[in-house]
Amino acid sequence: MSEHKGRLFGLGVGPGDPELITVKALNRLRAADVVAFPSAEGRKGHALTITEGYLRDEQVRLPMVFPVTIEAPPPPFDYEAALAGFYDGCAEQIAGHLDAGRDVAVLCEGDPFFYGSYMYLHDRLADRYETEVVPGVCSILAGASVLGTPLVYRDQYLSVLSGVMTEDDLRRRLTEADAAAIMKLGKTFTKVRRVIEEVGLLDRALYVERATMTTQRTLPLADVDPATVPYFSVILIPGRTWVGSPV
Amino acid sequence: MSEHKGRLFGLGVGPGDPELITVKALNRLRAADVVAFPSAEGRKGHALTITEGYLRDEQVRLPMVFPVTIEAPPPPFDYEAALAGFYDGCAEQIAGHLDAGRDVAVLCEGDPFFYGSYMYLHDRLADRYETEVVPGVCSILAGASVLGTPLVYRDQYLSVLSGVMTEDDLRRRLTEADAAAIMKLGKTFTKVRRVIEEVGLLDRALYVERATMTTQRTLPLADVDPATVPYFSVILIPGRTWVGSPV
Repeated sequence: MSEHKGRLFGLGVGPGDPELITVKALNRLRAADVVAFPSAEGRKGHALTITEGYLRDEQVRLPMVFPVTIEAPPPPFDYEAALAGFYDGCAEQIAGHLDAGRDVAVLCEGDPFFYGSYMYLHDRLADRYETEVVPGVCSILAGASVLGTPLVYRDQYLSVLSGVMTEDDLRRRLTEADAAAIMKLGKTFTKVRRVIEEVGLLDRALYVERATMTTQRTLPLADVDPATVPYFSVILIPGRTWVGSPV
Repeated sequence: MSEHKGRLFGLGVGPGDPELITVKALNRLRAADVVAFPSAEGRKGHALTITEGYLRDEQVRLPMVFPVTIEAPPPPFDYEAALAGFYDGCAEQIAGHLDAGRDVAVLCEGDPFFYGSYMYLHDRLADRYETEVVPGVCSILAGASVLGTPLVYRDQYLSVLSGVMTEDDLRRRLTEADAAAIMKLGKTFTKVRRVIEEVGLLDRALYVERATMTTQRTLPLADVDPATVPYFSVILIPGRTWVGSPV
């Protein structure tokens, strides 16, 4: 163990376009000794894809390979325990580098504290090591920008919902929101779309997948083929326009 | 009028720290002929303060001076009409530059489509000129980062609320949210704090003002003196930690 411990950086790298990283995250990324990033078996993951062009050859790359993909095996497989064990293991690996005096940057697509996997490492490490979190542009705001649609006006109320919610929950929360963003789609898409139609919001709902990535696609929700919806997609229901002009 | 029209850029410049601008917004900012920014009588405004160090001397600076500050005069002053007229006038000035072939960057603290004043110009101009919106880091996520607190875990539901809401609205929405962010404080602070205490969330509520600016201040909500609360402050009620480890 080194006398001088390394520092932990949780870096938001933005939604997909490499230029949507902040100047601060870019500086921290370039200075780090070790770069850790979530990935899946055989794939490098979005966070690394976004930042690859910025890395130096001599930086240690530490992939954190998820034990399950979006499709978890059926019970008796214990998803919760597998996930907890995964984060425990990643935290231990990172702690090893920090103890040896190496600065570690953990990459996080979007923002680190907004549904980011970095959160689970932060909760395991931040009390033991000097830590800095650099916020990032989240997928919702990236989605609004590429759709060209203002999201919330003045005192409007925004609900950030998850496709995993029950239909009842979705219905109640969509009914009372001025504007809404629904994340975590993929397999939940058909249910979400049905509820949106039921509550009369289909004509206001927009869909974007992989916002700001080269493979980005935007379309009205009504035109989306459910079979094609990836996890990295968002539905936005923008607030009603306040033009303010007495027309 | 020039044959070649200029382009309109809505640039999110982030929450306050000049390094929290994205690489893309910085590039667009530096390339623009005209830089427009919201300001108040006698003050340059946050968006210009954030980006000042990046501007070139030869760029035209176009301050958009709000007709009223946060304290609007009492009736019969028509706030809605004054605001609409203000945006009409700004849009006209910007259109003049665009028609003359000059690219105009409109600066927006945080993100342009997340309660940004750019939205009202976008709605007046985007159908007539080539337009690009560059998303930014919003104040809520900046607040979470400086507080060092993950905001939403897994499938938690986030409510973005405004201090301007009625007590009843605030109460209902806070009661059912997993996590919440309350913006637009200042004069509304005492009411918001009272509701948070009533619904039993005071011990989870955190307060941050001017997140990532040099004048930033963070403290537990219970310790805040209402007399000192500026408009640029946020209350965060983070979602409950999911550690996931069988303790």
